[in-house]
Amino acid sequence: MSLYSEIASKIVKKIDLGQYRPGEKIPSVRQMSQKLDVSISTVLMAYDLLEGQGYIEARPQSGYFVRSRSTVASPKPGKSKGAPIVVPASSTEVIYNVIRSCGSRELYPLGAAVIHHDFLPTESLSKALAHVSRRHAQEINRYGQGIGRIELREQISKRSLDYGCEFSPEDVIITNGCMEAVYLSLLSTTKHGDTVAIETPTYFGFIEAIHSLGLKAIEIPSLHDAGIDLEQLESALDKFEIKALLLCPNFSNPTGSQVPIENQKRIISLSSKHGFVIIEDDIFAELSYQDKRPKLLKSFDPDHRVITCSSFSKTLAPGFRVGWIIATGPWKEKIERLKSSLSGAAQTSTQLAIAYYLQHSNYEKHLRRLRQQLKINLERTSDFLIKHFPQNIKFSQPKGGSLLWVELPTKYDTVKLHHDALAKKISVIPGVVFSISQKYRNYMRINFGNTWSDDYQKSLLTIAELIRFQE
Amino acid sequence: MSLYSEIASKIVKKIDLGQYRPGEKIPSVRQMSQKLDVSISTVLMAYDLLEGQGYIEARPQSGYFVRSRSTVASPKPGKSKGAPIVVPASSTEVIYNVIRSCGSRELYPLGAAVIHHDFLPTESLSKALAHVSRRHAQEINRYGQGIGRIELREQISKRSLDYGCEFSPEDVIITNGCMEAVYLSLLSTTKHGDTVAIETPTYFGFIEAIHSLGLKAIEIPSLHDAGIDLEQLESALDKFEIKALLLCPNFSNPTGSQVPIENQKRIISLSSKHGFVIIEDDIFAELSYQDKRPKLLKSFDPDHRVITCSSFSKTLAPGFRVGWIIATGPWKEKIERLKSSLSGAAQTSTQLAIAYYLQHSNYEKHLRRLRQQLKINLERTSDFLIKHFPQNIKFSQPKGGSLLWVELPTKYDTVKLHHDALAKKISVIPGVVFSISQKYRNYMRINFGNTWSDDYQKSLLTIAELIRFQE
Repeated sequence: MSLYSEIASKIVKKIDLGQYRPGEKIPSVRQMSQKLDVSISTVLMAYDLLEGQGYIEARPQSGYFVRSRSTVASPKPGKSKGAPIVVPASSTEVIYNVIRSCGSRELYPLGAAVIHHDFLPTESLSKALAHVSRRHAQEINRYGQGIGRIELREQISKRSLDYGCEFSPEDVIITNGCMEAVYLSLLSTTKHGDTVAIETPTYFGFIEAIHSLGLKAIEIPSLHDAGIDLEQLESALDKFEIKALLLCPNFSNPTGSQVPIENQKRIISLSSKHGFVIIEDDIFAELSYQDKRPKLLKSFDPDHRVITCSSFSKTLAPGFRVGWIIATGPWKEKIERLKSSLSGAAQTSTQLAIAYYLQHSNYEKHLRRLRQQLKINLERTSDFLIKHFPQNIKFSQPKGGSLLWVELPTKYDTVKLHHDALAKKISVIPGVVFSISQKYRNYMRINFGNTWSDDYQKSLLTIAELIRFQE
Repeated sequence: MSLYSEIASKIVKKIDLGQYRPGEKIPSVRQMSQKLDVSISTVLMAYDLLEGQGYIEARPQSGYFVRSRSTVASPKPGKSKGAPIVVPASSTEVIYNVIRSCGSRELYPLGAAVIHHDFLPTESLSKALAHVSRRHAQEINRYGQGIGRIELREQISKRSLDYGCEFSPEDVIITNGCMEAVYLSLLSTTKHGDTVAIETPTYFGFIEAIHSLGLKAIEIPSLHDAGIDLEQLESALDKFEIKALLLCPNFSNPTGSQVPIENQKRIISLSSKHGFVIIEDDIFAELSYQDKRPKLLKSFDPDHRVITCSSFSKTLAPGFRVGWIIATGPWKEKIERLKSSLSGAAQTSTQLAIAYYLQHSNYEKHLRRLRQQLKINLERTSDFLIKHFPQNIKFSQPKGGSLLWVELPTKYDTVKLHHDALAKKISVIPGVVFSISQKYRNYMRINFGNTWSDDYQKSLLTIAELIRFQE
């Protein structure tokens, strides 16, 4: 554990023991630095962490104070205390730096959730884009319409049979990638200060979005084999007013877990009982290692309680930024309206190019091959890790997607590993960014959506070495 | 004036006279409907309007109550009351319907701020897009990087000489159009409940964005010849805590007004004195009827107080959705970070296509011709209106852009005109959508960015007829 998080833990202990009481001022940064004989910046980092976790708050010109519980969470009356607490979703420098490093062309992408362009119909899409550019010169240079091109919305709704869920092209809203889809879904179902339930670990982009919207988050543990823990969810629902549940039921990021169908049905009835909305992230569902993709969580929803977000970024075209929302009932108009105030209608040419590809190519065949390739890559990568990584590591067994969640013994620090790997021009994602409370310091996420190349194997070997270096 | 707004005015009068006091419950919708002998829906519309204007608030299961001033505005202590009030930015059905109609392919675009594709290098851009699609197949199909393509950011920063303002490619953040740029600027400079000053009349998209972010707005009148009224701005700044000023200094939407340079400098010193940020909408500045575009407001800003938002939507490619932010100082990193949590990096192919066009074509020559065409269109349109429209109308004299702000005598209702025009397959934008308080009911916006065609003239004649029909 690093020095600043050690200091933070000590302060948490004092708060838990009542040595620092709610509303009480804690020592100033300077005092604490003298008291513990550490640098001012170390104390600042510790205080930042505690502020992010909701334990303390900074008041301008006054210093740092222990947060009173009433501003942290509003438990429903008459229920016992315990388990998860609600914290203002704070995002940390490490998340930001990880996001920046994800996109870097100079790093080998062992962390970012990227499907290599050799696994994608990159040439066909390039031809499709060139075709629509020439063929529809005027149309692609006019302002688009609110919810996106009908050609593409039709292609998406044609797949509703696979989704196990009937919806029409009018229920599809095209967005700038899945990230904008999730942002819009949160924006339309919550307001400032509301609480959103998320799985933990969860995708760091969600934490950033929740943070930027001024929402609070409650973390519900995710079980590797069954996704979100329903007992913990129920206990949180009994205690807290939860407005929305943001969930990746099929092949969650980073664990690759899948919520069993009976649990999905239970989530729907909980949503109906407690009145929260479910935002379903479906981005990895097409990457099932089965022959077919699983049904949408939305397919078990009789009552417009689920808003589904997805994109073509993992199956066709990461660079095209074409995502969508399936919104029915009251959400449709609200989201459509927010979309126009956020960024206007989506860009036309990439929508038309993907629609053209879907119409003229064999998407199903491509998906079958991609699933097969990822499944093989998973097996090879798992074998490779068992052979070359320290013996005491564990890793998830995803049922789809391209991500492995790797657990090292607690003595290892993957933030350090992340930095060491950057120096070797490799990106791995440290576990801390997958939780608001910065858990998972000895975890990391590895992406096996790369081709099985020398570079890939060398990168994995370098990581193995860097881990050993920490011993 | 329509019935419901008459009812609303009467209620406002009663509130002003203290007959309905802050916190007091006003008659229920049913009671009011019986009392005035009007339909329930008319009363509902009146109450909606009053709620939007911040006079009353609905409390679930309790009815409508006069808002207490303290929840509406927080005047600074020791200052006299008067002039503008701060209201929660509310958006109305009419704005939403106008935005929807703007994009419709079935309507003649007499209202939407669209530059006709014949005035734009549509063919060259289509070729550029086809070229980069084929040439950079792999690159356009990879996730982009945070702030956008360096090729495009370089081209934009090359124009900093024209902007009168030095900035580097690193200060440019590519966005999904100017709308996302403005949204991000608001998101990064304000938090829920803060107050933003806007011009009135102002672009309805801004009202929607302010609304969706849970901000309050204060409307500062804009003078047709000099833009925002600085005396009123100062008086508002003395009374209210204003976090940001959202302004279109060069050729505002809808009036086409331009803020004189001495006023721009005064705005900067006000910003420095009162500590607010200026969000500069530069989208129309290249459409100056002079030979050169005016300098940026940001060029008079020594101290990172101005964030500039713009796009290529009015000069090159409405359908490409390529906008940008020029952010320096502390804003740069904050906006970059929010961009990634909002929608990730912008799409690659259209960025590369525009960069290619800027590198290989004569953008300056295109701009010169476009400015000339718009200037001619303005003159022709003005003459046409004088000849064919009722004599008692007035209209603005824009110094750039493609928009005319038309004032009819108060007996006319442009919301009705908007609906009547829709029935004739023409879109005109009614004045009410340009203000939060739904002023300008006898105003409308007309776009002369169309080619001087029979259709254009016929549409104008139809509008003239519909106006006469209201006499």
